[in-house]
Amino acid sequence: MQEHTVKAFDEDITRLRGLIAEMGGLSEAAIAQSLEALVNGDDELADRVVKADKKIDALESEIDKLAVRIIALRAPMADDLREVIAALKIAGVVERIGDYSKNIAKASKAIGGNRKQFEPLTLLPAMADVAAEMVHDVLTAYAARDAELAREVIATDEKVDAFYNSIFRNLVSHMVENPSTISSAAQMLFVARNLERIGDHATNVAEMVHFAATGTYPLDEDG
Amino acid sequence: MQEHTVKAFDEDITRLRGLIAEMGGLSEAAIAQSLEALVNGDDELADRVVKADKKIDALESEIDKLAVRIIALRAPMADDLREVIAALKIAGVVERIGDYSKNIAKASKAIGGNRKQFEPLTLLPAMADVAAEMVHDVLTAYAARDAELAREVIATDEKVDAFYNSIFRNLVSHMVENPSTISSAAQMLFVARNLERIGDHATNVAEMVHFAATGTYPLDEDG
Repeated sequence: MQEHTVKAFDEDITRLRGLIAEMGGLSEAAIAQSLEALVNGDDELADRVVKADKKIDALESEIDKLAVRIIALRAPMADDLREVIAALKIAGVVERIGDYSKNIAKASKAIGGNRKQFEPLTLLPAMADVAAEMVHDVLTAYAARDAELAREVIATDEKVDAFYNSIFRNLVSHMVENPSTISSAAQMLFVARNLERIGDHATNVAEMVHFAATGTYPLDEDG
Repeated sequence: MQEHTVKAFDEDITRLRGLIAEMGGLSEAAIAQSLEALVNGDDELADRVVKADKKIDALESEIDKLAVRIIALRAPMADDLREVIAALKIAGVVERIGDYSKNIAKASKAIGGNRKQFEPLTLLPAMADVAAEMVHDVLTAYAARDAELAREVIATDEKVDAFYNSIFRNLVSHMVENPSTISSAAQMLFVARNLERIGDHATNVAEMVHFAATGTYPLDEDG
């Protein structure tokens, strides 16, 4: 590439990374807020989470357009092209992570009045913290092309799965003992399931980051 | 582009479309087989669905590599570049659809012996047929750049959602009346949820196909 093309490419890629970081920040905030809405039964906050998801969707679309423009105008090669393609794929997954928070906000609204009776109401925020941290770390790993941090994110997914299994068992017991709360308990189950999916998606991104950084996928036990 | 480059590009894009079609075919088959495993309590078939998902994952990776090669070697412009990018994004979503079938197969194995007691066991295959048809139609729409068919797929998602709501209510009633089956009923609920997600993802692909064909997204009510 000519020197001015290199500079233009660097500016474009910086902007692309900035958009991904912004999308990641919004999706982390959405996780935290959807759980806050759940714990406090705050329907108004839940509505705000649903509405804020539009912004995440719009960022994905902006990233797609910028990536296409970079490829068309700068014709990046090898590693650079791989990074732009990774950005495209990552934006798609982060958009999906936003959807899971939106699902949690909707489930929160579907849960009736007395949610404090559900023990997982204290476990779910802790599970969400781990999932949100995975999202945060994997986007840090992307920005720094840090394959080691990406592998750590993949390892953390086990914690999320352990939370999920514990919450699943707890809710099933609760349903057995309190049949009148089954419908609300099922919504709690969906919340846990959506958090578990966020962990899975952060893991997928970690695999992409690993690929973009090293050209190889980390060992995948259960693809 | 030079004439030989155009020909090489056409060959590449035909191959790319072929890989997407193959991936789509495998993911349709996985939906049908996961439901067959569920209905018959066939754990061996469920294991085969889980194993076959590796092939879908491998195809995604092949599509990614081919797309990157096409972009790097052929430097496609405008519509052609948009199609290659759409292929990349679509492959990511179809991979996810494969994951949902894998989830269904796993849920099937987690359901205990007497699954015939669950009424949704007859509704779920019908729901799966609609979801699989959406996947089929949206990939046809992609191959034919058919924005009209893409819009039809988006409209069909309402049917899947209606199935889901009906099955959800049915399972909650079943849980209330038969508390001892709650754990299995929760797995049935996950099956319904995974089918509902397949419908959502086919809808997402339909939006991408619409975009690749027309440069605009269809009106999105609930992004």
